[in-house]
Amino acid sequence: MPNPVLVEVTRGQMVESRHRGMAVVVDGEGKVVMSLGEVETPVFPRSAVKSMQALALVESGAADRYGFGDKELALACASHSGEPEHMRLAGDIVARAGLSESDFECGCHWSSEQKVLIEQARAGDKPNQLGNNCSGKHAGFLCLSCHAGVDHYGYVGYDHFVQTTVRDVMSDLTGASLGHENCGTDGCSIPTYAAPLNKIAHGFARMASGVGLGAERAKAANRLMSACMAEPWYVAGTGRACTELMRLAPGRIFAKTGAEGVFCATIPEKGYGIALKCEDGATRGAEAMIGAVLSKLFKDDQDLSAKLDGWSRKTMKNWNGIEVGRIRPAGELA
Amino acid sequence: MPNPVLVEVTRGQMVESRHRGMAVVVDGEGKVVMSLGEVETPVFPRSAVKSMQALALVESGAADRYGFGDKELALACASHSGEPEHMRLAGDIVARAGLSESDFECGCHWSSEQKVLIEQARAGDKPNQLGNNCSGKHAGFLCLSCHAGVDHYGYVGYDHFVQTTVRDVMSDLTGASLGHENCGTDGCSIPTYAAPLNKIAHGFARMASGVGLGAERAKAANRLMSACMAEPWYVAGTGRACTELMRLAPGRIFAKTGAEGVFCATIPEKGYGIALKCEDGATRGAEAMIGAVLSKLFKDDQDLSAKLDGWSRKTMKNWNGIEVGRIRPAGELA
Repeated sequence: MPNPVLVEVTRGQMVESRHRGMAVVVDGEGKVVMSLGEVETPVFPRSAVKSMQALALVESGAADRYGFGDKELALACASHSGEPEHMRLAGDIVARAGLSESDFECGCHWSSEQKVLIEQARAGDKPNQLGNNCSGKHAGFLCLSCHAGVDHYGYVGYDHFVQTTVRDVMSDLTGASLGHENCGTDGCSIPTYAAPLNKIAHGFARMASGVGLGAERAKAANRLMSACMAEPWYVAGTGRACTELMRLAPGRIFAKTGAEGVFCATIPEKGYGIALKCEDGATRGAEAMIGAVLSKLFKDDQDLSAKLDGWSRKTMKNWNGIEVGRIRPAGELA
Repeated sequence: MPNPVLVEVTRGQMVESRHRGMAVVVDGEGKVVMSLGEVETPVFPRSAVKSMQALALVESGAADRYGFGDKELALACASHSGEPEHMRLAGDIVARAGLSESDFECGCHWSSEQKVLIEQARAGDKPNQLGNNCSGKHAGFLCLSCHAGVDHYGYVGYDHFVQTTVRDVMSDLTGASLGHENCGTDGCSIPTYAAPLNKIAHGFARMASGVGLGAERAKAANRLMSACMAEPWYVAGTGRACTELMRLAPGRIFAKTGAEGVFCATIPEKGYGIALKCEDGATRGAEAMIGAVLSKLFKDDQDLSAKLDGWSRKTMKNWNGIEVGRIRPAGELA
């Protein structure tokens, strides 16, 4: 069975493009609350699991040692837009461990946000590693390594202490077997592991509910997601989906996107974990899907449900500002 | 039946994302040479039909009156990157009709190519209408209107002489009924009409073969496609797919992309017209599809077929330059 069409892009009165996807919602016990498409398919969650990758930073005591407050923890879970304050804070964090920009191993790129990129180009800036959307996560990795007294050099490598630690935590949390057989290299050079989408969702449900977790892990998970919900701008940036979604319902939704059309989320008050993937990797598809899924899950709160439904629908304008089409949930998400 | 998966995006040893699509190849008589997916579905061809939209410019005598050579005709059929020479020539063309940048009605945007955008931002430039990817087409529209002695104001409108002329030509050529019922607004504000994909392909096959066309139209079609093949940089720009494909086989392939995953092409020596659409609108999907389709159609020329097959496969590198995955034809295009 092909994955169902979950999002349509219209032009005039007609559908111009379609996005298929798979989406699953589970509770802490692993009970399936919603399931669309082939949710047992292995999916690279990419940056959507940065909060899982940051658990060891908190559990180890490194976060406390280097003074991580909400903003720093949110940045450690972020795919940020490389706005000046994101870059400043990433540099500030590693300075507390005696490190600097040249110690990062994530690579450089211009901001993905055109407005930010143009400002940087006009200012004569060049990309540096602090502007990499993953620099907050890498700042966390560097602190984790320093705190453990392990040489940070090569911390992005499969066999480095940082990555074996992260892999063990993620495998515990999701119940998925993670290793060379399902490993790829992420945009920032760390390993990323393809795990069944429903197991990724279950990992998030455990983080949201604490079910099956030890006290320290449950506390760390809560601290990380609470930090992201308290400082959502640090998780993404101005006008970005994760930031906007978390601002729609302060403290009630944790949401994080990943490259190639992934979105993960939790609803702490319900103990739900959510994972979805737009089959073709489109960000616009994944964003409409997560808005629509969250709207359905909050159907007991009409006001919030309507806000989320509205957010999931986007009007597209052309270069003259004329409305030319829409992006909207379709099929079972309509 | 869902459209088949025609392109896969891999990471490590696994498939990360999939692109479905529909593709059709026909000859001048309308005989189907290749057909994948639902090829009778109405599709907005967007910018892929700019060569059809430029036929009246040539047939009317406007192109000759305003001194259109190969470069100017290629630009009239282009979705260019807004590089300085593209912008200069668009401005030069309309100056010959006594017009200037403010007479365009396409709107402004920064270059879609990051390198060009950064150069423009660093130079303190702001977007203007000459940098709109459609400015060459609009320069042609303005010349068509001036040549006919019609006030060019509002030339993007559904009922303006320019658009009724373009609509009549496209309807004749494709055999599709084009009107309000299947009309949308394009990025540059002109009407775009959703027509069955196989009829769009047939229109291109008529342009390539001359079958069923009057002598003047056949000559104009040949002149436009020859100009694009002679000056492919003016059709797109540095490193762009249309430019690269036409350079791979000088004079043997005419190719033009359109927004939302469309690609159209002709093979003049075979009299074939090709039209395809990546269901989800992804450019990377459409590019891999057109390379693979052309490779199959040139299987009688092993060298060219291998070049096209190679071109259809892309290696993806991350921010550190590490190879992380591939984009490759799949299913019936593998």
